[in-house]
Amino acid sequence: MIHFDSDYMAGALPEIMQRLIDTNLEETSGYGTDEYTRRAKELIKSACGNDNSQVYFLVGGTQTNKTVIDTLLERYEGVVAADTGHINVHESGAIENSGHKVIALPSYEGKVKAEDVDSYLTSFFADETYAHMNIPGALYISFPTEYGTLYSKEELSAISKVCRKWDKALYVDGARLGYGLVAEGNDVTLKDLSTLTDVFYIGGTKQGALFGEAVVVNSESKRFANFTTIIKMHGALLAKGRLLGVQFETLFADGLYTRAAKNAVELAMKLQSGFIDKGYQPAIASPTNQQFFKLPNEVIDRLSKIATFEYWGPRGENESMVRFVCSWATTAGAVEKLLAAL
Amino acid sequence: MIHFDSDYMAGALPEIMQRLIDTNLEETSGYGTDEYTRRAKELIKSACGNDNSQVYFLVGGTQTNKTVIDTLLERYEGVVAADTGHINVHESGAIENSGHKVIALPSYEGKVKAEDVDSYLTSFFADETYAHMNIPGALYISFPTEYGTLYSKEELSAISKVCRKWDKALYVDGARLGYGLVAEGNDVTLKDLSTLTDVFYIGGTKQGALFGEAVVVNSESKRFANFTTIIKMHGALLAKGRLLGVQFETLFADGLYTRAAKNAVELAMKLQSGFIDKGYQPAIASPTNQQFFKLPNEVIDRLSKIATFEYWGPRGENESMVRFVCSWATTAGAVEKLLAAL
Amino acid sequence: MIHFDSDYMAGALPEIMQRLIDTNLEETSGYGTDEYTRRAKELIKSACGNDNSQVYFLVGGTQTNKTVIDTLLERYEGVVAADTGHINVHESGAIENSGHKVIALPSYEGKVKAEDVDSYLTSFFADETYAHMNIPGALYISFPTEYGTLYSKEELSAISKVCRKWDKALYVDGARLGYGLVAEGNDVTLKDLSTLTDVFYIGGTKQGALFGEAVVVNSESKRFANFTTIIKMHGALLAKGRLLGVQFETLFADGLYTRAAKNAVELAMKLQSGFIDKGYQPAIASPTNQQFFKLPNEVIDRLSKIATFEYWGPRGENESMVRFVCSWATTAGAVEKLLAAL
Amino acid sequence: MIHFDSDYMAGALPEIMQRLIDTNLEETSGYGTDEYTRRAKELIKSACGNDNSQVYFLVGGTQTNKTVIDTLLERYEGVVAADTGHINVHESGAIENSGHKVIALPSYEGKVKAEDVDSYLTSFFADETYAHMNIPGALYISFPTEYGTLYSKEELSAISKVCRKWDKALYVDGARLGYGLVAEGNDVTLKDLSTLTDVFYIGGTKQGALFGEAVVVNSESKRFANFTTIIKMHGALLAKGRLLGVQFETLFADGLYTRAAKNAVELAMKLQSGFIDKGYQPAIASPTNQQFFKLPNEVIDRLSKIATFEYWGPRGENESMVRFVCSWATTAGAVEKLLAAL
Repeated sequence: MIHFDSDYMAGALPEIMQRLIDTNLEETSGYGTDEYTRRAKELIKSACGNDNSQVYFLVGGTQTNKTVIDTLLERYEGVVAADTGHINVHESGAIENSGHKVIALPSYEGKVKAEDVDSYLTSFFADETYAHMNIPGALYISFPTEYGTLYSKEELSAISKVCRKWDKALYVDGARLGYGLVAEGNDVTLKDLSTLTDVFYIGGTKQGALFGEAVVVNSESKRFANFTTIIKMHGALLAKGRLLGVQFETLFADGLYTRAAKNAVELAMKLQSGFIDKGYQPAIASPTNQQFFKLPNEVIDRLSKIATFEYWGPRGENESMVRFVCSWATTAGAVEKLLAAL
Repeated sequence: MIHFDSDYMAGALPEIMQRLIDTNLEETSGYGTDEYTRRAKELIKSACGNDNSQVYFLVGGTQTNKTVIDTLLERYEGVVAADTGHINVHESGAIENSGHKVIALPSYEGKVKAEDVDSYLTSFFADETYAHMNIPGALYISFPTEYGTLYSKEELSAISKVCRKWDKALYVDGARLGYGLVAEGNDVTLKDLSTLTDVFYIGGTKQGALFGEAVVVNSESKRFANFTTIIKMHGALLAKGRLLGVQFETLFADGLYTRAAKNAVELAMKLQSGFIDKGYQPAIASPTNQQFFKLPNEVIDRLSKIATFEYWGPRGENESMVRFVCSWATTAGAVEKLLAAL
Repeated sequence: MIHFDSDYMAGALPEIMQRLIDTNLEETSGYGTDEYTRRAKELIKSACGNDNSQVYFLVGGTQTNKTVIDTLLERYEGVVAADTGHINVHESGAIENSGHKVIALPSYEGKVKAEDVDSYLTSFFADETYAHMNIPGALYISFPTEYGTLYSKEELSAISKVCRKWDKALYVDGARLGYGLVAEGNDVTLKDLSTLTDVFYIGGTKQGALFGEAVVVNSESKRFANFTTIIKMHGALLAKGRLLGVQFETLFADGLYTRAAKNAVELAMKLQSGFIDKGYQPAIASPTNQQFFKLPNEVIDRLSKIATFEYWGPRGENESMVRFVCSWATTAGAVEKLLAAL
Repeated sequence: MIHFDSDYMAGALPEIMQRLIDTNLEETSGYGTDEYTRRAKELIKSACGNDNSQVYFLVGGTQTNKTVIDTLLERYEGVVAADTGHINVHESGAIENSGHKVIALPSYEGKVKAEDVDSYLTSFFADETYAHMNIPGALYISFPTEYGTLYSKEELSAISKVCRKWDKALYVDGARLGYGLVAEGNDVTLKDLSTLTDVFYIGGTKQGALFGEAVVVNSESKRFANFTTIIKMHGALLAKGRLLGVQFETLFADGLYTRAAKNAVELAMKLQSGFIDKGYQPAIASPTNQQFFKLPNEVIDRLSKIATFEYWGPRGENESMVRFVCSWATTAGAVEKLLAAL
């Protein structure tokens, strides 16, 4: 059986496993106060090219979204997001559990439009009764989105401009950030993210780490002054914090993060081409590691004999939307086998 | 100046004020443990005709929604509501502040459809990943809705049936309940609400009391076993609880609640007829005390010289939606004066 | 039966009831945007003599404590209080429900000592692991305390100094403030509270209003910039806000607040003297409207035939602590009758 | 430098690292739905000998405490704990952040007494005003405690009996469970914990895993029916859940968990004997891997040249309390070196 269900099915990149083995019996202080973590932070700050940035490591994506958003917002503020945004759909109400409304805007293949955000904020604050509403305090977007799509630098700049005009924080969920950065046609860099956003995170879990997300805070925000306490309060402070440091140091020391992402995206493009060759156009124009197709159920059933992948929505009468995900661990052989069975 | 802004602009019905004066210097125990409160509860239970019902008094509407919904839901559950529902729009995120998502469904003049609720729940629980979502735990509807519309008994029964099928609590926000109960064409009674819902509240603040809402819990739910503690925890337990008892006893002792509501609705119908006579059709077919019209801005400006009322949405270029609200305190003279200026 | 159970057994001062009657049928805008509220705020600001103060009205004490403390604290901060403090004992976990720890310090007849606060904060921040704790963000004290005792101006100044040294907010629960201000020997004034504290509230519920507490914010704190939204989110925004304005305007227009408090305290002193004359020393040296005695159970049982009052703690084998509370509504006759039965 | 700071300074047991390497490139489904996790659960259930038990895996201790306690309690309930309990001191208010008060009882070397719990509950529910308090809903104890001490089976049974008498859940924090189970004189077994408690957890982080805690739920509680959603909502659901399964399967397949714990405790005993031999009595009679001594500052300074360890409280003028922690990774050589320097 070959697997295209998700990008967190395998363990970690061999380089990371090796590094964990090599450092295993060293004894260091806990909670991220060790040298590995310090070096990993330096490497990431350097990659972002922003001296004002601060880097923090958390374990998982929902945890990171919950903790960061709770930090960015006042208790009476909500977070604006695409209606398809992960925080609005697949996080078990983690944001609301911290007391914040997720204010959903229409999405376009997973993306929000700067003008929609602007006109939402305009009409919100024009409403004389807005003190009786949950006040928007930040914008959440994902890069790539849940649909594999990307914001262009122009789009991201426009969104950033709107957020700054309204003094709202811009937070980018980068669970699959690397897969976006290396995508063909992408013109957004880590440095852009460091200047255009207030906070973003560099996903590790889906990009070759056992686990771990690197939060990059770009503003000298007072809100993050006691971030360690906030992380701990959210149950999100890893005791053996150096495990995160070791992994991210390995990912960012010599470009491993990028190389691993490239593998996934190249294979996803190969997969896409293969489908197109067989007459199946992508349902969404995704240049990243997730590929969506509306396929006849008989084709789906045939592929299911050799591969696992996910339905995207309910199974239709004759055809259904399905998703194929490549990761750093996907092999060319697996893609070929899938295409052969198509 | 005459006023049609809202139904909470005046104090209380003279009968209520007299009763508060009459009982003012009596000394009773606090927090609703007094005789007035006991009698008010009996009167309301009797009006509802449900021996299993329990009655509690709170001070205001948002407070009641927040406290009741937090009691109905598990901590990981959300509440389903019309996208126009008060809890989704005008309560400053009070529901989310208690940790619960408001799951918005499409609305039709403020109402949700039983089939929409059913199909939402069907697809929610058909989704294999639903454990990763905020689980719907209750349905919130308002009667009358924020648009003055009413559910028919048939509609309410259908909604109740769906909720019971899925074992979800049905909660009715009755901030303006009396104005609905007395409306022409309404076929829903307090007894119906007592059998078809799990909890509803009988609004006092907008219906002639200084303040106060009567929560009627129809099921012998274990969830309400420590409701006094929950109310107190939400900062919603009135020290001089008898003030609520005295007011609701007065409202329900001899039909005052109904008489006062009738005045408002009759005048609202008179207002509506007057507008129709002048060629302005209601924007929404509301049989209750709120009336909505789309009027030319010049008409709005003319009326504004003698009356206050609210825009319903932003002012348009040529015409705008406005709302006129009648209450127990509205006089026939005020409606005539408004119509004369139309 | 005569009553000494609590200071919220009767309705409101006749002057307040009259004012509510006089203004009853006026129609004003809601949520405290009316003229009565504006004037009441001006009167209170003037009484406090602090032009920077802002005044807000809420309905009840627990609600006020919950809303104000949640506003003063960051989400990861707790509030320091006497172990006997109302928020630590009798508010059903309302503070924790908003996410904040109540950090209890030892109390002395209901009071905390400035040096205890200072040494607690000193050792807290000296602990290298303090980021792993709930960080103290404010100090809560009550004036008078739950035991009827008062801080002297010197004590209050010392506490204020410690709070400012550590940059922690000082909040005073003044549910019975008037009873403290008029007490013999008291040297603390409203002006002192306005300069020495960050926030305090002037209790109405226990001092002659039907309900209502006036929150005085003395600093130009950004935290209170959206306080109306926070109040609403907590379900604490009264629709007919002018009821609070009318009551506090009446209380502060011509010294009624002080006069009513004096009645209570004078009678409490008369009660105290009477007990002393009969050989019962007060258990706590309270100069305010609450009086505590340890009495033989036979005496308690005898008094219970003509009067109601509360046990303070469990009934002992031979003697028990009881509390007698006088209020603005207590009469000289009631005190005489009680003493006669002693 | 040798290290006795804590029991989470090294990575993982070599057997665990090997197993992670061996399974690294396998692709499995996420969130603990894999075969490793299933088998690990079976092994733990088998070790506990309770067919009704359910096992869940979380990442860290504070996270586990926060998530389990929030699941055990109603929203208006608090958790009773020793004043020295980890949740009351060192979790950044994580419990309060979920809305629950930590109700502190006096502790005796980290332990609570069954009779204290009973008399607290007795007087709580005897208080007629208890509805105005935060209602105790569960008891939290730790085994071993934060001071390394253990409850005997008799003590644990007595505590369990009190909890059942009052229908309160008993939850045991087993961050260092193994170190307690193997201690000399300990007569408590996993089976005892499975019958005497409602929930307990078997710590992995401090006992040889990279991270991970195994929660054992012994009752067929409805509260845990949607525990996966609750875990996710708390940001505590690990994407690559099999990492937890692989580790705990390794720990419980052939007694590794016990063997590793024994190493730590034997060395701790050796350390203790060494100190006694040199004339330093343990400050607390701990039979587990944590040892506490009050040492002259000059001795502390001397040891600090070759070893790291923690002050337990502030440094005193002449002598100070310090803690030495052995773990699965501690070597005999390290202990000898420390003793040699004493």
